[in-house]
Amino acid sequence: MSIFSLAIHGGAGTILKSKMTPEKEAQYIQALQEALKQGHQILSQGGTSLDAVEASVCSLENCHLFNAGKGSVFNAKGEHEMDASIMEGSTKNAGAIATIKGIKNPIRLARKVMEESEHVFLVGDGAIEFAKMQELEFISPNYFYDEFRFQQWQKVKDSDQFMLDHSIEKKDEKFGTVGAVALDIHGNVAAATSTGGMTNKKFGRIGDSSIIGAGTYANNKTCAVSCTGSGEFFIRNVVAYDVSCLMEFKGLSLQDACDEVIHHRLLEINGDGGLIAVDNQGNIALPFNTEGMYRASVSNSQKEQILIYK
Amino acid sequence: MSIFSLAIHGGAGTILKSKMTPEKEAQYIQALQEALKQGHQILSQGGTSLDAVEASVCSLENCHLFNAGKGSVFNAKGEHEMDASIMEGSTKNAGAIATIKGIKNPIRLARKVMEESEHVFLVGDGAIEFAKMQELEFISPNYFYDEFRFQQWQKVKDSDQFMLDHSIEKKDEKFGTVGAVALDIHGNVAAATSTGGMTNKKFGRIGDSSIIGAGTYANNKTCAVSCTGSGEFFIRNVVAYDVSCLMEFKGLSLQDACDEVIHHRLLEINGDGGLIAVDNQGNIALPFNTEGMYRASVSNSQKEQILIYK
Repeated sequence: MSIFSLAIHGGAGTILKSKMTPEKEAQYIQALQEALKQGHQILSQGGTSLDAVEASVCSLENCHLFNAGKGSVFNAKGEHEMDASIMEGSTKNAGAIATIKGIKNPIRLARKVMEESEHVFLVGDGAIEFAKMQELEFISPNYFYDEFRFQQWQKVKDSDQFMLDHSIEKKDEKFGTVGAVALDIHGNVAAATSTGGMTNKKFGRIGDSSIIGAGTYANNKTCAVSCTGSGEFFIRNVVAYDVSCLMEFKGLSLQDACDEVIHHRLLEINGDGGLIAVDNQGNIALPFNTEGMYRASVSNSQKEQILIYK
Repeated sequence: MSIFSLAIHGGAGTILKSKMTPEKEAQYIQALQEALKQGHQILSQGGTSLDAVEASVCSLENCHLFNAGKGSVFNAKGEHEMDASIMEGSTKNAGAIATIKGIKNPIRLARKVMEESEHVFLVGDGAIEFAKMQELEFISPNYFYDEFRFQQWQKVKDSDQFMLDHSIEKKDEKFGTVGAVALDIHGNVAAATSTGGMTNKKFGRIGDSSIIGAGTYANNKTCAVSCTGSGEFFIRNVVAYDVSCLMEFKGLSLQDACDEVIHHRLLEINGDGGLIAVDNQGNIALPFNTEGMYRASVSNSQKEQILIYK
């Protein structure tokens, strides 16, 4: 079998074509294309889904357009506090980190937690201490700075308001969380998610991106999933694992399971967002219940697709 | 309908009758009885499952015998760092906190997060800042001190070893995480879990106790679940939500779903531990794959049961 599949996202939300300039659109498309290429190269050369999702997410983290790594939003203290998680479907091993600062690629740290620790989930200063031992790349706070994110924060910083990257102003063109899912030619699936969270967030808030089962899940029996949206709703609905359960226990196809989760179950509690998923047969689903989701996919049999709007 | 049910646990692990003194056993039984009484009173007077699980967990947190609140284990820095979560089944609202210090009853803070914030999950100093605004009871580090826990820590503190409360020494009589699940006469289920985590834990490690879907889950459609065991395995298997999914999607009974999750699915990845669960009909299940689990249950039709061993 030489089937492989890859899908990536750069966040879901109020993304309207009417608010987008051709220049901006071209920038997003180029960034998605580059991130897709990073993972695609690995998969087409027989590499692992784990390496592919890490490479694609790193590429998105390194792009200031997305709310992850470089370009992460500002929290209430004016810092960039990031969360990420990764999971691989053959062993169901997983790694996650939350509320970390100063690490260039949070997804790399999540992978180190998975592979080099006995743990799954590390947070805060402790996670940073672990990162130092693992010789992860640290970088100055300025690296993460983005003018647009700064202005977003200025609007709300002296209020109690916080904002989900995509929910505040309908005219905001910049969105959130990034993620990748893949099936490799060895039949293994993997998923990865990374985020800067909510602008002006306080109180050490964690969303779904670093929660295994909520924002990220992978299992060779079923599928790999990475989510983006209003994190609190995704946690309460255990969204990523919900897709897997509908497939495993109810026999739904990937597409049907994804549609049920995003267009029915999540809406029951007024949750908005989307997800990307691949199953163990290489099928791809990219559902969202918002106006748009930055997304792209490719497989051994399907050429590159890059989409933004509905 | 005037059906109600309540179950509580004080941790699962290597609990052997041969290693237990009659005095110790009596202390545990009394503590479980007291915690059960707190929740039972509320339920029998028509109170909510949410109030009942909070009251029972507070009672267990206040008892030095269990690894939650008073009596929490020592982390690598000699501190008591606690995690907790709570969820209620009618709205699927949830609250969780992790790596917090100095708060007498972590479960109360988890409930405040659920009811008084827009968030589900707060960690570290941020969560403590939120606790201060909510006027939660703070208490000096000495309050949490327990001689047995201190000696446990002394054995490993200068090593890289950390220990799950129940996995270290087969003769350890003191165990872990606490939790409660309930169905009230209004037909609503709720679940709560609280823990001090692993002795000598480092790096801001979080286990399953504060993860919605892994350690705690509640949904009126199905059941309420609180877990205890090797947290990393419970996270990877999304254990609490797994029970609910087997009921909802596969039509399994509560007992069958619990047995499948604890005796089959968790063992596939070598996870050890147990859980307590009630369904929306008042059925109770208390499965574990270890030598013992401190547990107790009561309902409108079943008198108080308190058990420790297999």
